[in-house]
Amino acid sequence: MKFGGTSVANIERIRNVAQHVKREVDAGHDVAVVVSAMSGKTNELVAWATETSPLHDAREYDAIVASGEQVTSGLLAIALQALGIQARSWQGWQIPIQTSEAHASARITGIDGTELIKRFKERKEVAVIAGFQGIHEPTGRITTLGRGGSDTSAVAIAAAIHADRCDIYTDVDGVYTTDPRVVPKAKRLEKVAFEEMLEMASLGAKVLQVRSVELGMVHNVPVFVRSSFDKPEDIDPHGTPPGTLICSEEEIMENQVVTGIAFSKDEAQISVRQIEDKPGIAAAIFGPLADASINVDMIVQNVSEDGKYTDLTFTVPASEYNRAKDTITKAKDKIGYKAMDSATDVAKVSVIGIGMRSHAGVAAQAFKALSERNINIRAITTSEIKFSLLIDAAYTELAVRTLHTLYGLDQA
Amino acid sequence: MKFGGTSVANIERIRNVAQHVKREVDAGHDVAVVVSAMSGKTNELVAWATETSPLHDAREYDAIVASGEQVTSGLLAIALQALGIQARSWQGWQIPIQTSEAHASARITGIDGTELIKRFKERKEVAVIAGFQGIHEPTGRITTLGRGGSDTSAVAIAAAIHADRCDIYTDVDGVYTTDPRVVPKAKRLEKVAFEEMLEMASLGAKVLQVRSVELGMVHNVPVFVRSSFDKPEDIDPHGTPPGTLICSEEEIMENQVVTGIAFSKDEAQISVRQIEDKPGIAAAIFGPLADASINVDMIVQNVSEDGKYTDLTFTVPASEYNRAKDTITKAKDKIGYKAMDSATDVAKVSVIGIGMRSHAGVAAQAFKALSERNINIRAITTSEIKFSLLIDAAYTELAVRTLHTLYGLDQA
Repeated sequence: MKFGGTSVANIERIRNVAQHVKREVDAGHDVAVVVSAMSGKTNELVAWATETSPLHDAREYDAIVASGEQVTSGLLAIALQALGIQARSWQGWQIPIQTSEAHASARITGIDGTELIKRFKERKEVAVIAGFQGIHEPTGRITTLGRGGSDTSAVAIAAAIHADRCDIYTDVDGVYTTDPRVVPKAKRLEKVAFEEMLEMASLGAKVLQVRSVELGMVHNVPVFVRSSFDKPEDIDPHGTPPGTLICSEEEIMENQVVTGIAFSKDEAQISVRQIEDKPGIAAAIFGPLADASINVDMIVQNVSEDGKYTDLTFTVPASEYNRAKDTITKAKDKIGYKAMDSATDVAKVSVIGIGMRSHAGVAAQAFKALSERNINIRAITTSEIKFSLLIDAAYTELAVRTLHTLYGLDQA
Repeated sequence: MKFGGTSVANIERIRNVAQHVKREVDAGHDVAVVVSAMSGKTNELVAWATETSPLHDAREYDAIVASGEQVTSGLLAIALQALGIQARSWQGWQIPIQTSEAHASARITGIDGTELIKRFKERKEVAVIAGFQGIHEPTGRITTLGRGGSDTSAVAIAAAIHADRCDIYTDVDGVYTTDPRVVPKAKRLEKVAFEEMLEMASLGAKVLQVRSVELGMVHNVPVFVRSSFDKPEDIDPHGTPPGTLICSEEEIMENQVVTGIAFSKDEAQISVRQIEDKPGIAAAIFGPLADASINVDMIVQNVSEDGKYTDLTFTVPASEYNRAKDTITKAKDKIGYKAMDSATDVAKVSVIGIGMRSHAGVAAQAFKALSERNINIRAITTSEIKFSLLIDAAYTELAVRTLHTLYGLDQA
């Protein structure tokens, strides 16, 4: 069970979380709970570190921010004990949750679940684990996994203790076919394949951290996204609670062709015009961008008409737009382009579905439907289980609604 | 160097602490710094634990409250690095600071200073250590030393790294002959012996935690009490800063007869009348009090006139007054006393000085001076280096001023 910052924002909510855990314990389950810091706490700690010195030692940053989860793990252990449940808190270094040395964005390298499992068996003791943190054992220093890392902690712990399932309690009751604020008819998916969820998460459906989905996929840990606002007493632990199960493809009986529509307005487009169509030209453009740590997303290069000159379009996060333009301008001589144009008022709409693999013409339907709405498609990229379209930002909602209806995702 | 909660209450003050440390590093010293939590933080964490459950697991309490010092140790390390000083934070479990398993009031059992010393030599690295906390190694759990424990951490670390001195930065600039708020002419002591400081600290001069003074005495670590409000830039690191050195008796050239006057109004007096003067009667009274964990301070029993009946008076902290009365009332049959009377409006005034050992008649002077002021002495206890008088609380200030002048402690 994993509870995020809003679920443990104060003592009353921590008591509510304890009731959720009690329900599962009473149903006979062995439980490990992973908690985030109280909402707002991590931001406060980060602000202090930044105020002390904008360029601070990531090792010290980690020691500071990891304290937030330490507090909630202890408080939840106390709340559970007050309900008569055996429980103890675990810090990352106590288990230990071993990580790489990449402070502030460490990767989990290993977790030994033996002691936790032993305590389940011998004492029915609930393990309350501080999320987001670990230890780099060679140096003995506290590490953190980066923002949203508690999801990753939870899935990794679940794998280490061979859990049947990893329940992620969030402020939504599952994964939807698209953002319900844009499409009120969006429906909750009962099941979604890891691969599909990966595409949705990285495309802006911010329910889960991408890394946690990757981990779930690699270790085949079913991840169940459910609401932390459901009242513990209303839930039948033996029933099927509302939520979305993220699982392997094989466990989904009937794959829909399209599972969901994701979109992101946080995009900027840069087009480089009339570059020579010769080997090494892509490297000349994207090398300097990579050196500047600019995340390039879509890349579109068409086959040139005359075999001599071509255009190349790519997108970057809107926050990196200016840096990206500067980088390309500085590299103008090396790249040898004639002109550069760019836009920030663009959006990316993506259609995701494992069923696409075996269905032809899925994208073609979209092109037709959008053209009927007079929505111009600036660029297209495709992969095996999704395709993405770059359009004018003003048309985002219209495009999403159109595609949602087109692929039969509207709630009955 | 040890800095308390008010000295690290916000980032600006943490930067000021960093300047104090820089001054010592620039003067060529190897420095270990022990820090408390930001003022108010520990109270907040304790309140959360208590709100979650009034009767909470002390092991979880420790995990929760230790987080406060974790944050300040990281922040100070960052602030030092920003000044170009090599520094790193150390949590209790990282050094490790080994303690007993008595959670929330653990005792330090061992500290290995080798790694810290190695880093002084090899990298001139300042060790920034989270005070108040340690680890019980057999269970691997975080422990805390009890309120004010950071002073104890500091002296223990100083002993482990063979420090020349342990500087405790506080909100006062040293130890005074008595409370300057009561006696404006009170003067700062340049030096005071460990034994004297122990008597003063336990008698209510709350400059230092008693245990830290005991530790300093046992390991012969000179403890220097100085002000954290002095501006770092105004201090000559090679000069003699204002403050009080607590050291072994031998290092004080000329012992004064009386060093200081301590007092406490937080006292309650209970007198048990007409008890049989026979063996075992003291045990019958103090046994039940000890069982109830009531701290008895002064005990006065006079030789009975007739060899048959006597009276016995003792004091307890005012906060334990009602419980103590109940305990004695319940044990009435076993003790076999005729009456019990009690008072809460009493104060204890103590006169302390190592020189008393070799000077007769020191107490007699006090009795005379107080009687001239019409101050009635309710009870008297004496030890080798101090004597304490129980008087009506209303006369406390008058008595302290009278004795301060009597023993020549007034500032010239």
